[in-house]
Amino acid sequence: MPKLLIRNCQVLQVDESEARVLPAQDILVEGNRIQAIAPTGQLDPGPSARVLDARGQVAMPGLINTHAHVPMVLFRGAAEDVDAHAWFNDYIWPLESNLEEEDVYWGMLLGLAEMIQAGVTSVADHYFFMDQAARAVQEAGSRAGLGWAVFGSQGEEGLKRAARFVEQWQGQADGRITTWMAPHAPYTCDDDFLRATVEWAKRLGVGVHIHAAETREQTESSLARRGLTPIQVLERTGVLEVPTILAHLCGILPQDIPILAGNPVGVAHAPKTYMKLGMGLPPLQEMRAAGILFGLATDGAASNNTLDIWESMRLMALLQKHETGRPQAMPVHEALWIATRESARVFGRPDDLGHLAPGYLADLILVDLSGPHQQPVHSIPANLVYSTRASDVQTVIVDGRILMRDRQLLTLDLAEILGQIQGSMERLMQRVPERRIQVYRP
Amino acid sequence: MPKLLIRNCQVLQVDESEARVLPAQDILVEGNRIQAIAPTGQLDPGPSARVLDARGQVAMPGLINTHAHVPMVLFRGAAEDVDAHAWFNDYIWPLESNLEEEDVYWGMLLGLAEMIQAGVTSVADHYFFMDQAARAVQEAGSRAGLGWAVFGSQGEEGLKRAARFVEQWQGQADGRITTWMAPHAPYTCDDDFLRATVEWAKRLGVGVHIHAAETREQTESSLARRGLTPIQVLERTGVLEVPTILAHLCGILPQDIPILAGNPVGVAHAPKTYMKLGMGLPPLQEMRAAGILFGLATDGAASNNTLDIWESMRLMALLQKHETGRPQAMPVHEALWIATRESARVFGRPDDLGHLAPGYLADLILVDLSGPHQQPVHSIPANLVYSTRASDVQTVIVDGRILMRDRQLLTLDLAEILGQIQGSMERLMQRVPERRIQVYRP
Repeated sequence: MPKLLIRNCQVLQVDESEARVLPAQDILVEGNRIQAIAPTGQLDPGPSARVLDARGQVAMPGLINTHAHVPMVLFRGAAEDVDAHAWFNDYIWPLESNLEEEDVYWGMLLGLAEMIQAGVTSVADHYFFMDQAARAVQEAGSRAGLGWAVFGSQGEEGLKRAARFVEQWQGQADGRITTWMAPHAPYTCDDDFLRATVEWAKRLGVGVHIHAAETREQTESSLARRGLTPIQVLERTGVLEVPTILAHLCGILPQDIPILAGNPVGVAHAPKTYMKLGMGLPPLQEMRAAGILFGLATDGAASNNTLDIWESMRLMALLQKHETGRPQAMPVHEALWIATRESARVFGRPDDLGHLAPGYLADLILVDLSGPHQQPVHSIPANLVYSTRASDVQTVIVDGRILMRDRQLLTLDLAEILGQIQGSMERLMQRVPERRIQVYRP
Repeated sequence: MPKLLIRNCQVLQVDESEARVLPAQDILVEGNRIQAIAPTGQLDPGPSARVLDARGQVAMPGLINTHAHVPMVLFRGAAEDVDAHAWFNDYIWPLESNLEEEDVYWGMLLGLAEMIQAGVTSVADHYFFMDQAARAVQEAGSRAGLGWAVFGSQGEEGLKRAARFVEQWQGQADGRITTWMAPHAPYTCDDDFLRATVEWAKRLGVGVHIHAAETREQTESSLARRGLTPIQVLERTGVLEVPTILAHLCGILPQDIPILAGNPVGVAHAPKTYMKLGMGLPPLQEMRAAGILFGLATDGAASNNTLDIWESMRLMALLQKHETGRPQAMPVHEALWIATRESARVFGRPDDLGHLAPGYLADLILVDLSGPHQQPVHSIPANLVYSTRASDVQTVIVDGRILMRDRQLLTLDLAEILGQIQGSMERLMQRVPERRIQVYRP
C-alpha cells in the first residue's frame, strides 16, 4: 500500500488534563500505522504517496463503540415507549427468534455503514451468528471486537460455538478483528456456566464481554435470590479475573465499586439507552475516581435508535452536569478523553488506538467545522463535544485504508444492503405468541 | 407567486393522542398557505405550478424555536464548563458589551442559516439591536417573533426603544415578523419597570417574552429578598395578563403552577442548556397536566452550542423518561405534539402554524429517511424523535417560499456571512475588566 499523506489538517490531542489542537499539520500514514505528524510541509512522503487535502478539517481518532448489538439496527424504532419487561418479552426476544444467519450479515453491514458515516471506526459487538458479523467486518474495513452471545440455557454447546468463533476469528482481517467470550448476563447464565466461560477465555487468551447490573431491579433480584450483587457473582465466578467489558452497570451498589476497581474491567456506557429505558445511571464520577475505566457505547439501535457515539459523548457529559447540578462537571477535555483514549483501553487496545501519534494505528477521521452550526469556532474541543453532528465527519480511515471520503462510502454498497434488508422485513417482523429466544425474568 | 405542488411525500399528522403518517400524498401550496393535501395524483395544480418531487421524504411542519438569542451564535463555545455566575459575569455579559449593530445583523443571519439547515422555520428571539435582527429575518425568509431585550437599568428610554421596535416591525416582512415586549427577567427589572412594560404591551396589542425563575437560586433569592417567587412577581406586576412566553422556569415552586395555569402563558423549554448549566428542570409533566403549554427552544448558542430543535425534542423526551424512571413517559407522539402544535401555540399562532392542513401557513420541511442511521424504518414518528439529525432535512419552505432545497440555502450567502463575522471576531472577543452589560446578581 502506498504511503498516505493527510495534508494541512488540525490535529486533536487529548490528555487527562486538557484537549489541544495543533494547527496546520500533516499526518503521514504508512501501512496501517501513523508514521509521523508534523507541521504542514515538513514531511516528505516520497513521490508515490497518496495525498489527501484536509485543509481546515480536524483530524481526530476514530470513535470507539465499546458495546453494541450492531445487527439490531434491523429493529430500530420497533419497540418504543415500553418498559424493560415488555421491551424484551413482547418485542425484542420474539423478533430475534426470527433471525437467520443472513439477517445478521446484512444487519451488521448496515450498522457498520451507519457507524462509518458517523466516524465510529471500532465496535465491540455482542450478538448472534457472529461469523456472519465477522464476514461483514472483513468487507466493511472497520475494526471490531466480536463476541458470540450465549445464554446459560444453551449449555456446553453454546459455549463451544462461542469458543470456536474465537479460535477462528481472533486476529483475522489483518488484525482488525479481535474476539471475546460473550456470556449474556449473570441473570441468564448460572455460576457454573460463567466459570466455564472464564476457563475458555483463559485457555484462548481473550477477555469477556458481558451485561451486568443493568438496572437496580436486576441487582435487587440477585440480592433477594442469593444475597449477592451481580458484580459479586462475577467476582466469585472468576469473570473479573480476565479483561472484561461490563455493559451498563446502572444498578450497581457502593460495595461493588472496590471490587471493580481491583480488577481489569472496563465499563461500557450507553447513556441514551439508559435515559430512554429509564434505567438510571452508574455513578460514573465516583467510579472513575476509584480508577475504573469507562468507554462510550450505544447499545443496540433497538433501544438507542442510532449507533452515534457523538450523541453518547454529548449525553454523557450533559448528564454529569445535570445530575450534579455542577456545570463544571465532566469538562470538555474529560469527555474527549473518555471518547478516545479511555474507550481504547476498554476496547482492549490501550497502546495503539484512540490517539493520533506515531506508532498508533491509522484509525482516524476528518471532521468538517465549516457548517453554520459550528461557526464561528472559538474552541474546537467544545465544538466536537457540543456542536458536532455525525454528518460533519467527512473522511474515515481505518487501519490505513480510506473507508469514506467526502461522505462517500468506499467499501459498502448501501443500496444493495438496504434492498436485501427490505426483502427480509416481513419475515423478520413476525411475532408468534410464546416464541422468543429467552424470557426476561431478572 | 405560482402554485407549488409537493409531490409524493409522506405527511406527518400529529394530534394529542397519536402521530400518524399519510403515505403518498401531494401538498398544494398557494401563496403562503397550504391549499390542499390529497393522495398523489388527485390534485390538479394547473399548468403553471412549480412541482417539487419529494418521493420517500416526510413532510412535516417546520420546527419552532420558542426562545433563543440567535445572534449569540457569535459566542458559540466561548464559555464552557463554568457556573452561571462566571458564565454571565466573566464571559457573556463582558462579551456582549462589544456588540455593535452590524454584529447582530450578521450573527442573526448566521443563526438563521443554521436553523434553516436544521428545519427550524420560526424563532422567538430575545436580543439587542433587534431592528438589525428584523432586517436579517426579512432577507433570510424565516418566520420570527422578535423582542428587543431590555434591562430595568435602561429605564424609560430602553422601554421606549423596545416599544418603537414593536410599532415599526409588527407584521412586517409579509407578516412573517411578529413582535413582543421583551424585558429581561424579574431579577433585572423592578416592579415598576415590569408594570410599564405591560402597559406598553397592552397599548401595542402584543405579548411579553421574558426569562423567569431560571434556576432555584433565582427563586430562593427572590423569596429571601421580598417573600415572592419570580412567578408571583410576574403575576403581581400584570405580566401574566398578556400572552407571555416564559423562558426556562427550572426554579419554579409548586405554588407557582396554579398561577401559571390560570393565565395565557407558554413555557419555552431548552433542555440542553438546562443540562449543560446544571439548572435542573421544570416539572414539565405536572405543569402540562395543569394545562400549561410548552414549546421547544434552544436558548442561545453560547449555552446550547447549536440552534437544533431536533436535539431539544429528543432531550426533552429522554429527560422525562430518565427523571421518572418510566420509559413510557413522554411517548413519541407527545414529543412531536409539543414540537409542532404546542410550540405553535406558545409562539402565538395556534390556528395556522405547527400543522399541515389546508388553510395553515406553508411552513414545512421535507425530511429524508434514506440514511443508514434511519433504516429500516419501522416507525416514522419514532425515527423523527430518536434517529433524525438536522442534516436529514432536505428542503425547507416558509410562507410558501423555498428557503432550502436539497440542502442548498437559497436566500443566504453563507460564505459572505462567515467572512463578515470572521472580520469582527478580534474586536468581539475582547474582555475588558469590569466592562459588561449587566452584573449577574440574582
